[in-house]
Amino acid sequence: MHHETVEITGHLIDSGVLSLVIDDIREYEGDWVIDRFDVGHEAADLSHATITVSTEEEESLQRLLMRLQTRGVNQVDPGEASVLEVEQDGVFPDGFYSSTNLVTRVRINGRWLVVDNPEMDCGLVVDESGPAPRVFTIPMADVKAGMQAVCGAAGIKVEAPIAKDAGATFGFMESEVSSEKPQAVLVRQVAEGMREAKAAGKKVLWVGGPGVVHTGASPAMVELVKAGYVDVLFAGNALATHDIESALYGTSLGVDLALGRGVEHGHEHHIRALNTIRKCGSIKAAVDQGVLTGGVMHAMVTGEKTFVLVGSVRDDGPLPDVYTDVIEGQRAMRAELTDVGFCLMVATMLHSVATGNILPASIPLVCVDINPATVTKLADRGSSQARGIVTDVGLFIEQLTGELVPSYRRH
Amino acid sequence: MHHETVEITGHLIDSGVLSLVIDDIREYEGDWVIDRFDVGHEAADLSHATITVSTEEEESLQRLLMRLQTRGVNQVDPGEASVLEVEQDGVFPDGFYSSTNLVTRVRINGRWLVVDNPEMDCGLVVDESGPAPRVFTIPMADVKAGMQAVCGAAGIKVEAPIAKDAGATFGFMESEVSSEKPQAVLVRQVAEGMREAKAAGKKVLWVGGPGVVHTGASPAMVELVKAGYVDVLFAGNALATHDIESALYGTSLGVDLALGRGVEHGHEHHIRALNTIRKCGSIKAAVDQGVLTGGVMHAMVTGEKTFVLVGSVRDDGPLPDVYTDVIEGQRAMRAELTDVGFCLMVATMLHSVATGNILPASIPLVCVDINPATVTKLADRGSSQARGIVTDVGLFIEQLTGELVPSYRRH
Amino acid sequence: MHHETVEITGHLIDSGVLSLVIDDIREYEGDWVIDRFDVGHEAADLSHATITVSTEEEESLQRLLMRLQTRGVNQVDPGEASVLEVEQDGVFPDGFYSSTNLVTRVRINGRWLVVDNPEMDCGLVVDESGPAPRVFTIPMADVKAGMQAVCGAAGIKVEAPIAKDAGATFGFMESEVSSEKPQAVLVRQVAEGMREAKAAGKKVLWVGGPGVVHTGASPAMVELVKAGYVDVLFAGNALATHDIESALYGTSLGVDLALGRGVEHGHEHHIRALNTIRKCGSIKAAVDQGVLTGGVMHAMVTGEKTFVLVGSVRDDGPLPDVYTDVIEGQRAMRAELTDVGFCLMVATMLHSVATGNILPASIPLVCVDINPATVTKLADRGSSQARGIVTDVGLFIEQLTGELVPSYRRH
Amino acid sequence: MHHETVEITGHLIDSGVLSLVIDDIREYEGDWVIDRFDVGHEAADLSHATITVSTEEEESLQRLLMRLQTRGVNQVDPGEASVLEVEQDGVFPDGFYSSTNLVTRVRINGRWLVVDNPEMDCGLVVDESGPAPRVFTIPMADVKAGMQAVCGAAGIKVEAPIAKDAGATFGFMESEVSSEKPQAVLVRQVAEGMREAKAAGKKVLWVGGPGVVHTGASPAMVELVKAGYVDVLFAGNALATHDIESALYGTSLGVDLALGRGVEHGHEHHIRALNTIRKCGSIKAAVDQGVLTGGVMHAMVTGEKTFVLVGSVRDDGPLPDVYTDVIEGQRAMRAELTDVGFCLMVATMLHSVATGNILPASIPLVCVDINPATVTKLADRGSSQARGIVTDVGLFIEQLTGELVPSYRRH
Repeated sequence: MHHETVEITGHLIDSGVLSLVIDDIREYEGDWVIDRFDVGHEAADLSHATITVSTEEEESLQRLLMRLQTRGVNQVDPGEASVLEVEQDGVFPDGFYSSTNLVTRVRINGRWLVVDNPEMDCGLVVDESGPAPRVFTIPMADVKAGMQAVCGAAGIKVEAPIAKDAGATFGFMESEVSSEKPQAVLVRQVAEGMREAKAAGKKVLWVGGPGVVHTGASPAMVELVKAGYVDVLFAGNALATHDIESALYGTSLGVDLALGRGVEHGHEHHIRALNTIRKCGSIKAAVDQGVLTGGVMHAMVTGEKTFVLVGSVRDDGPLPDVYTDVIEGQRAMRAELTDVGFCLMVATMLHSVATGNILPASIPLVCVDINPATVTKLADRGSSQARGIVTDVGLFIEQLTGELVPSYRRH
Repeated sequence: MHHETVEITGHLIDSGVLSLVIDDIREYEGDWVIDRFDVGHEAADLSHATITVSTEEEESLQRLLMRLQTRGVNQVDPGEASVLEVEQDGVFPDGFYSSTNLVTRVRINGRWLVVDNPEMDCGLVVDESGPAPRVFTIPMADVKAGMQAVCGAAGIKVEAPIAKDAGATFGFMESEVSSEKPQAVLVRQVAEGMREAKAAGKKVLWVGGPGVVHTGASPAMVELVKAGYVDVLFAGNALATHDIESALYGTSLGVDLALGRGVEHGHEHHIRALNTIRKCGSIKAAVDQGVLTGGVMHAMVTGEKTFVLVGSVRDDGPLPDVYTDVIEGQRAMRAELTDVGFCLMVATMLHSVATGNILPASIPLVCVDINPATVTKLADRGSSQARGIVTDVGLFIEQLTGELVPSYRRH
Repeated sequence: MHHETVEITGHLIDSGVLSLVIDDIREYEGDWVIDRFDVGHEAADLSHATITVSTEEEESLQRLLMRLQTRGVNQVDPGEASVLEVEQDGVFPDGFYSSTNLVTRVRINGRWLVVDNPEMDCGLVVDESGPAPRVFTIPMADVKAGMQAVCGAAGIKVEAPIAKDAGATFGFMESEVSSEKPQAVLVRQVAEGMREAKAAGKKVLWVGGPGVVHTGASPAMVELVKAGYVDVLFAGNALATHDIESALYGTSLGVDLALGRGVEHGHEHHIRALNTIRKCGSIKAAVDQGVLTGGVMHAMVTGEKTFVLVGSVRDDGPLPDVYTDVIEGQRAMRAELTDVGFCLMVATMLHSVATGNILPASIPLVCVDINPATVTKLADRGSSQARGIVTDVGLFIEQLTGELVPSYRRH
Repeated sequence: MHHETVEITGHLIDSGVLSLVIDDIREYEGDWVIDRFDVGHEAADLSHATITVSTEEEESLQRLLMRLQTRGVNQVDPGEASVLEVEQDGVFPDGFYSSTNLVTRVRINGRWLVVDNPEMDCGLVVDESGPAPRVFTIPMADVKAGMQAVCGAAGIKVEAPIAKDAGATFGFMESEVSSEKPQAVLVRQVAEGMREAKAAGKKVLWVGGPGVVHTGASPAMVELVKAGYVDVLFAGNALATHDIESALYGTSLGVDLALGRGVEHGHEHHIRALNTIRKCGSIKAAVDQGVLTGGVMHAMVTGEKTFVLVGSVRDDGPLPDVYTDVIEGQRAMRAELTDVGFCLMVATMLHSVATGNILPASIPLVCVDINPATVTKLADRGSSQARGIVTDVGLFIEQLTGELVPSYRRH
């Protein structure tokens, strides 16, 4: 048997994290002995545990140790990081360290270096070419031959996820997604989170799907863009096209927004809106030429806000601004994460999961959808900091705007 | 082959009703010949069709004719109604006429009598004991030996469902249920429907589930009760108990409403709230004794509004006001339908279906639920006048109150 | 501050139970000190914790102690049970003990008595009139003036829920409901659970909704009845009526089962089937008279199996066998729980929750539904022993029959 | 007012198509007069209608005429097609004809040419450079300056959608999606559709999501690949990666398939499986090198079947075979549609919509998902030939394999 001693400090009992650690050990067919467990006697005290884990194979021990780090469990004696040279573009060495989205430190030559941009499911690359050595995450598609990749779990420490604190702003819905919650309170908490981020000089990132337009929330969202609560928007071809279609023709995939009457199909408007913007050359060009005069995308352009549109295989057109290569699209999204202090995801499974994949765990994240599966999927993929609100997107944005822009009235 | 000639007048082409009629004939393994079809030439003109339908058995012909009446298709020569004496309490004669919820006329002794209280899936009983003969619907459980029940489809005419009119207040969502609709517009349309009913001296009927309390909508609903927009409430033990639990303990099945934090279970509060009201003797007694001082049920009692609570097999307690016999509960609900001019169903499958079963087709009906299946189920059961809105119940009632009670502010 | 010292033994760390205990204490605004925590060193060892909890009010301390008992947490020094006389029919004394569905012991006159029939949300009544004193649960509606009810949490011990054991038959899906599971394996596990129950001389209880008929599973379920895997059936008016309608007319709410073609409505068949059975007097009478010759209910009658049908407010008819009083229905269901060793709930929210309410925690329980909300709702109501399978009911019963009745072939 | 006379032939009354035509006219704010309506007198007779439609603007008349063509409504006197030269790559002329996925004819120089590859939401390009002129659809992204694009609705005829025939193989579920259907019958009908396609020398196209692997259906699907019922597979990075992960490590996103026990996360296996295949160079290379020895993708490679994997913005890795540019991916999918005679979509919204967008209406198409929204979305996007089955994907494929591969047994 191969074994290693690990430790964890925190509110171990009320956070339930030890239960997850035991599940991990079982999944990797390992065994464990609790060497020491100092329980905090009173509610506010921290607990500390030391556990020796063991597996039959050295390789599965290393992989189990990497997994445990996603819980904030580190080796008592991590030693030095092991580094191997990448031999092939786009391929990590076997046994490479698969990263978490937590704050991470790597020990190189006796010094602990903080990893630059925590992102899950990446590799860690050590760069000693500059005056000071540094370590950063790199996605598999971007790794190049000759880079130095960290392998195994040695020499690495992560910071435990933020302790569960029932009084915190985003302490709602710790454990589950539900539609049976007092929604008005949730709206206020999201508004408060956005105000805090702005007050701290941080950006607010929105990730949106076409439901924003279909539910009639565009006018409210335009107010939020104008008021400065939408610094960056990640979306696909659909949100932008339906928004533009609505601005050009007053419809969105067949919904007559003014009267609230549903109409079955509206492809023809849709495809013509795409052709019109392609003719202009870009969304900004369409605004500059006076072709596009309203809607969310118009507000983003005139407010000089940033948007990243990434395509998908079901797209018509697409709009000229859309990244048709999804890996390039991911790179463009990563480039806009700097200084993001709050993230709101509304009405999109695809782009919410994509953003959850690249977001550091430290950024507060709220996901709003009428479909509980979207939020559940996010949590299943490891974005444990996600808080979900199952509600109607149109009414939610309407109410959020009422909170943040007091002058806004629906009529 | 047995055959009969039937006719229908209306906007036959754009309503799609003929397609449904053909489906019906096929289902009963019948055949048809279109004898005459006068199409309205212009958009506003009515069309008229005469069709001869035939089946192999006389019994299935009679049953097909009853079915066709639910579409507004009547016999060209209906003749006299056939009446048989009921032989056994709670059992109709074989071949009894199964009623629709449309306006219905029955020819007795050469005179056309209007059926008193249209309700689907009942029998029609003729009462000639009074000064003037009358015909009324009676549910199977209530029919008594010696009553005179109409059998077969002869001597009966129904009025076609209200023609599809795209401009009408409730013309939204004619054909389907959807969450991707501009909800703010829908809220305004429901508010308008309630105002119209009140202006016409009619009552507004609410059918509600416990989600009204769980989503934090109680304070808004209390305002609507006070403002006179909730004349009658149909609900189960759950809505009333959770509302009362919330008023007594500030919780509702484990949701801390003030902070928006979820708590797993709250049975103990729940069962104690039930015991407290049972001790008082009734909800009204609890209000009178100063035990119950807030919430929706308190507002209903102090505003002298009517409520009918009917139990179900999953109930704890139940509250002393709850009908534990469901057939008695149905009778109590029926007794409150007089003068209802608008019906809103929120967050309950069970009581919405129950109310849809007994409601005449002429009453505008809107069903609001976060679950599309609830509305679909209503429509599947024949309440074709139902209009569905898939949205968050909490935010919906919040917005509806904002529309109807201008002084209402959330804070 | 009022305080009490409690203790718990078990796989405390990997079961996560301590985290739930802390949540409970917080919900009741209490505080705690961990006096002692002996952690099992190796995976198989039990842990033991002693905790002193405190609250400001004596009443909330008592209520917190009752809550903690649902986790298997007992007072170190429970003392004697406190008993008060019931003063009013159907009303417990204030501060009555609200029961769990776990194995429970009560200390009366220095002796520990085992509670006869554990059921959640009931009271405990002490009966010293016989030769030996006994304690049993009684629902609120059934308690009578003069009975002796246990009050407060003193003198009571419950047995902790069965420890989490990853290798056990029903260890699948410990923590969540999901549709993304290898269903064929789950089918085999349910079959195994039923075989074990039968081998132990226990009964298999089915709780079913009309979806059993709509999805075409009736022929397969008839095989299971014949093979002895359906000893007791709890259902509503709908399952039985649709089954009988299908047997009489070959349809079920408008679904032509042989061809798989959907038909919109089928009320007329439905209401006529009800009238036919009412005329016979009961389902058994309809079988005896040769009127009903096939389907699930026919198989139950000819196999002399037990069924309890309880009505709801949405019922048509209902069938003569249906309990229209829901409290009487609950009593009839309780009376059939003796010797049940396995419970399968399929395609019904209402009757599944109702059965979950009265079932002891010790009976294995599997809930199958295409709608994840049904299972989630069960768990939210406290039936923590429920295991959920989100799948198609028709295919599930088909496969289950293939497992249990090897001679069964679909064609 | 601008007006045009159009005509339609078919089972107009029972198909309900005229109702849709009137809805279209209203949506474009047009008016209509029914000039002539010859109704088929008996059930089998065709009806024929001639309608004059009018709008205020010529442009909206042209757009309305294009819309009506999607219903099979053609101009009585279509005249010659109007053709304009494309001026800009990727941009159609204003007023370009937006295509349907129905069989389409275009009149050029007095001759009716059949459009090569019907696809919705494309343009029509006339190519007179060869010996015989031809017309084909081209997506917006692929149109080049200098091409000749058809504009307006003149000179175009489409063939009406296949008439509704209640007895046809895929006549089930004409009007709605439902989970309450006899699933065993549906399985047989899908099997029959696949056999018919193969017997006619056509290919069977599968479009699949990762749910195929998660639900444990891989072994059954491997049998279907071997038996020749999977000629082409369209999927994303997820299905292939989870299948390969399952083959390499026996897990799929944390589901232990052999025991049916759920495990929370499995990222680490996932990311390592991707790295392994990237190191090999391609899925085929991994098979050739003996690295990949089982699963669906292995069966596709060894059986020399075709697969097209198209990426999305949420992808990890991705696999080297994945098209990262979605427009190139669409082109690759289009290239494999030749000779497809049956299409089955399972457990994927994204790729099902993408395939529905490019598929001719004449190919039978069945969509299987546990989520009703997926099928509804398909229908909303215009793939009206889609038939939906709401069921468990794992059990469905299991049963389908039992039908098609008699030797297959689950154990």
